[in-house]
Amino acid sequence: MTSVRTALIDVASGYYAEDSVIDATSTGLAPASHSWSVSFTRMHGGPSDGIDLVRLNNGHLQLSLLPTRGMGIWKAESGDLPLKWDSPVLHPVHPSLIDQSRRGGIGWLDGFSELVCRCGLSWHGAPGTDTIRDELGNVISEQFLPLHGRIANLPAHEVYVEIRNQRSIELTGVVDEVSVFGERLRLTSTISTEIGSSEFSIHDSVINLGGTRAEVEMLYHCNFGTPLLGEGSTFHTAANRVTPRDKQAADGMSTWDTFLGPTRGYAEQVYFIAPIHDELNRGLAVLTSPDSQSALALRFDTSTLPWLTLWKNTQAATDGYCCGLEPSSSLPNNRSFEREQGRVVNLQPDESIDFRLQFEIVTSQKQAESLAEEVLVLQQQTQSRMDSAPAADLSPA
Amino acid sequence: MTSVRTALIDVASGYYAEDSVIDATSTGLAPASHSWSVSFTRMHGGPSDGIDLVRLNNGHLQLSLLPTRGMGIWKAESGDLPLKWDSPVLHPVHPSLIDQSRRGGIGWLDGFSELVCRCGLSWHGAPGTDTIRDELGNVISEQFLPLHGRIANLPAHEVYVEIRNQRSIELTGVVDEVSVFGERLRLTSTISTEIGSSEFSIHDSVINLGGTRAEVEMLYHCNFGTPLLGEGSTFHTAANRVTPRDKQAADGMSTWDTFLGPTRGYAEQVYFIAPIHDELNRGLAVLTSPDSQSALALRFDTSTLPWLTLWKNTQAATDGYCCGLEPSSSLPNNRSFEREQGRVVNLQPDESIDFRLQFEIVTSQKQAESLAEEVLVLQQQTQSRMDSAPAADLSPA
Amino acid sequence: MTSVRTALIDVASGYYAEDSVIDATSTGLAPASHSWSVSFTRMHGGPSDGIDLVRLNNGHLQLSLLPTRGMGIWKAESGDLPLKWDSPVLHPVHPSLIDQSRRGGIGWLDGFSELVCRCGLSWHGAPGTDTIRDELGNVISEQFLPLHGRIANLPAHEVYVEIRNQRSIELTGVVDEVSVFGERLRLTSTISTEIGSSEFSIHDSVINLGGTRAEVEMLYHCNFGTPLLGEGSTFHTAANRVTPRDKQAADGMSTWDTFLGPTRGYAEQVYFIAPIHDELNRGLAVLTSPDSQSALALRFDTSTLPWLTLWKNTQAATDGYCCGLEPSSSLPNNRSFEREQGRVVNLQPDESIDFRLQFEIVTSQKQAESLAEEVLVLQQQTQSRMDSAPAADLSPA
Repeated sequence: MTSVRTALIDVASGYYAEDSVIDATSTGLAPASHSWSVSFTRMHGGPSDGIDLVRLNNGHLQLSLLPTRGMGIWKAESGDLPLKWDSPVLHPVHPSLIDQSRRGGIGWLDGFSELVCRCGLSWHGAPGTDTIRDELGNVISEQFLPLHGRIANLPAHEVYVEIRNQRSIELTGVVDEVSVFGERLRLTSTISTEIGSSEFSIHDSVINLGGTRAEVEMLYHCNFGTPLLGEGSTFHTAANRVTPRDKQAADGMSTWDTFLGPTRGYAEQVYFIAPIHDELNRGLAVLTSPDSQSALALRFDTSTLPWLTLWKNTQAATDGYCCGLEPSSSLPNNRSFEREQGRVVNLQPDESIDFRLQFEIVTSQKQAESLAEEVLVLQQQTQSRMDSAPAADLSPA
Repeated sequence: MTSVRTALIDVASGYYAEDSVIDATSTGLAPASHSWSVSFTRMHGGPSDGIDLVRLNNGHLQLSLLPTRGMGIWKAESGDLPLKWDSPVLHPVHPSLIDQSRRGGIGWLDGFSELVCRCGLSWHGAPGTDTIRDELGNVISEQFLPLHGRIANLPAHEVYVEIRNQRSIELTGVVDEVSVFGERLRLTSTISTEIGSSEFSIHDSVINLGGTRAEVEMLYHCNFGTPLLGEGSTFHTAANRVTPRDKQAADGMSTWDTFLGPTRGYAEQVYFIAPIHDELNRGLAVLTSPDSQSALALRFDTSTLPWLTLWKNTQAATDGYCCGLEPSSSLPNNRSFEREQGRVVNLQPDESIDFRLQFEIVTSQKQAESLAEEVLVLQQQTQSRMDSAPAADLSPA
Repeated sequence: MTSVRTALIDVASGYYAEDSVIDATSTGLAPASHSWSVSFTRMHGGPSDGIDLVRLNNGHLQLSLLPTRGMGIWKAESGDLPLKWDSPVLHPVHPSLIDQSRRGGIGWLDGFSELVCRCGLSWHGAPGTDTIRDELGNVISEQFLPLHGRIANLPAHEVYVEIRNQRSIELTGVVDEVSVFGERLRLTSTISTEIGSSEFSIHDSVINLGGTRAEVEMLYHCNFGTPLLGEGSTFHTAANRVTPRDKQAADGMSTWDTFLGPTRGYAEQVYFIAPIHDELNRGLAVLTSPDSQSALALRFDTSTLPWLTLWKNTQAATDGYCCGLEPSSSLPNNRSFEREQGRVVNLQPDESIDFRLQFEIVTSQKQAESLAEEVLVLQQQTQSRMDSAPAADLSPA
């Protein structure tokens, strides 16, 4: 037996597997070494009402996934270590309650609470007007683009689970970001984990189903709070270049890779990083806990995610104490600027692009040190260029 | 026995007939010659979650209706012939996910996928600012009107089925387009079909429940794709006048009533038509399939729907290859322009206006030719005026 | 036994008590003198779909409450006397269907139908741009604030019922008005009534859960229509000062405390009132029915609700014939103006503010006269200042 596939949602055929559990018993698979399961429920009441929730438990690692919010990963727990941040937005918010145009275009923040939240597919980054011009420079259209795009607030219309070789659990969701006379992009996202492991992976494919060229921008907003983040946590990455986004970040350049504890009134500091990759085209970002006893390693395919943004947001605990590691295809500036800089992906009709990320959680000092060491080895490829000020090619004037 | 009425939704009394089926057995009616039924279900998951769906099957013709989307007709099938178009928006989208102000006011397109989609009730047409002036010409208010009005994204609060004389199936829905200090319009829509027939009718009544005069604009966006539409399909209508909406349409005037196959990068061409009516005040529009073996005839009451817009949108299949036949009370321009031209309906308190349309599907060359012939006979009343350029009374400068 | 608590909604723990009834039997309490109950249901279909509805019946008084609409009170009935108004918005509207930015920022009105509707928490009042400046007067940010704030369209994520001493029924709901990089305010609202009584109370507490100072504005939009309001109804309140909001209201100053019957084309008249309070810090507003046989008394804690707005809106019945009594922390102007006037509440981190209101319904002429007499006694403290024109400190220029 190689694979058992179970549908959870299929709008096209009218299938919806309310309150179902998939495990060794339900699939007829022999019991594995670990007691794994995938449960599918719906949230009721409050701002979460109507959200589909998938809980994937590999026997060691638990992932809570939100098909209704663009296949985001709400939170995770590896053994006893929770991976999450405490957003001011306590509960997942149904997309229907989000008005992205609110507050000058930052309404997206009203629903921002995930561990891993996609920004994209047609654009991400700061809100503002994107002026689209033809090849002669004439204005074709001006469109206001609110913060971070549509994908986090689009529900998956197809979701299924596959168990492969009695070893790997995969959850796949299909989300359309479409309109008439607009983009026709489809995200097919597969989150997978091996039974009993402390790792999980994301493999996303975005295809242009439309008849004309389409622009794509993707950013993975991966957010970590207490306990992984704390005063004395350290950040490790092998970089060709590290650049502060703005003056605020430039002022903090000397401490760019360490973190404060929760600090009232802290203003976010953001760094743009051009990562070094290994022979498998993987960039590596490591966040180590204050006691050095645990760490999170994020590996990402730099062939399509050539940028990494570090979001230092060590505000008061109550205001969302958090650090973001954000691999992306382009930087989180307005799309007009990213287009000028040649960083926006263009997909021809039927063309697709794949994005791959791996998350590894370690819970011993030895493993944490080993990850930091791996970063050091990677960094030996080249000396990192550390910009002391914002750069004209990375930050709009 | 003359009529059996079955409620499906009645918010006022708290009634909701989840997952019900109405047929000869459930109504106690003697079996008809055809096995007819009306089923009522709710869609689950994805963007369609929470949409009420009524499937009306007269034994030959099937209609899928969406009370949650203003009583729109999602798709139909007459015998083996599907009536639909393949919108980039694959699944019906719940109104709560639509932000009409998006993309400069064309967010309506994010949910546009129906065979018959109403545009109205207070306005339809291109987005823009409608300046309302008092009788002295002073500006009373300026309101931004997004594309095509509210009605397609307002859920029916009352829905019921009536079986008349064991012969006619009628689905009625009541939709309020209201606000405080705003319009108070109510649509009562009845879609009916005879058991076993290949025809269906819409009878809509819009009443002004408010205490002051109200403006009404209504347009029926009836959209047809493959297989009825294809390279070589022909359009037939008896017209007093045919006018291109813009230069793009004027350029295509010589082929205004024929269609290309799916064409990447095709830019829509729109024609405004003043239809000739028969002795029953019915205008007639016919779309004939490429092989001339099938046709759709749309008859509409020109006493309240004096205009017909032809929307040629023969884009790539994947981008929504489609042709729209759009009977309307006014043209799909901004309401300010339509008001100036005297085409906006005014309803006094308690006054109502009725709109009537009939759809007939034929599946033989003989019948298709007969419909085209009917158009020719109607056209004998007068010579059609064919404008070669946009007209100042029909298109804003 | 002092208290029995029953949860209805708790999103944090995934609890949702679908279709439950709480009464003497279910709680194991000995039967009370009156047959009381609390029922919890969900509305289905139309614009109300997905709204949680709590019906609280104390044996004499019935309250219909809407946790999904910020714990608003939809309508009430005391004995045979209904307390409500007939909004053009016939049915409660789910917040997901409300676009507050619509119609220049008055989209809030699309869902306005409650007897008691909160406006707040961060702002209320007329739509417009709020310019926030630092202490040096520099513009920090400009934010467009739509009408009446977010709270009426935010669903409670925690709701529970408590029966105290077999005598008092309390419904508590918790609603978060939060965002990332935005406000983090929490409303904990308790509506309580004694078994068999014709009174109910609101005790709201708003806490600033954020790490920095937060602004709070709160207004209780309490709306009464037929039969309490009619031609000849009278309004009684003890005031230090009564001021017309604008010229329209100034023109009606001589009849400011009496009401017309339903009047087509009536333009709203609004009066700002600085109430006199009793020794318990309670202001008092009384609305007496045309036949003087019934009255509504609204008492409110002036230590946090120092203002009362009278909204005379005696339009046609069909347009929402209504009168609003609106105790508030600040006046319903744009927040910029209220901040300048020093009326916006500031909460430090973890600081909270309490708002208290009591509603008493009387149904005899003697009781109604007694309430009016109580107003007269209060008024003896001081002579009311009656402004004949709008005042610069209360109405923006």
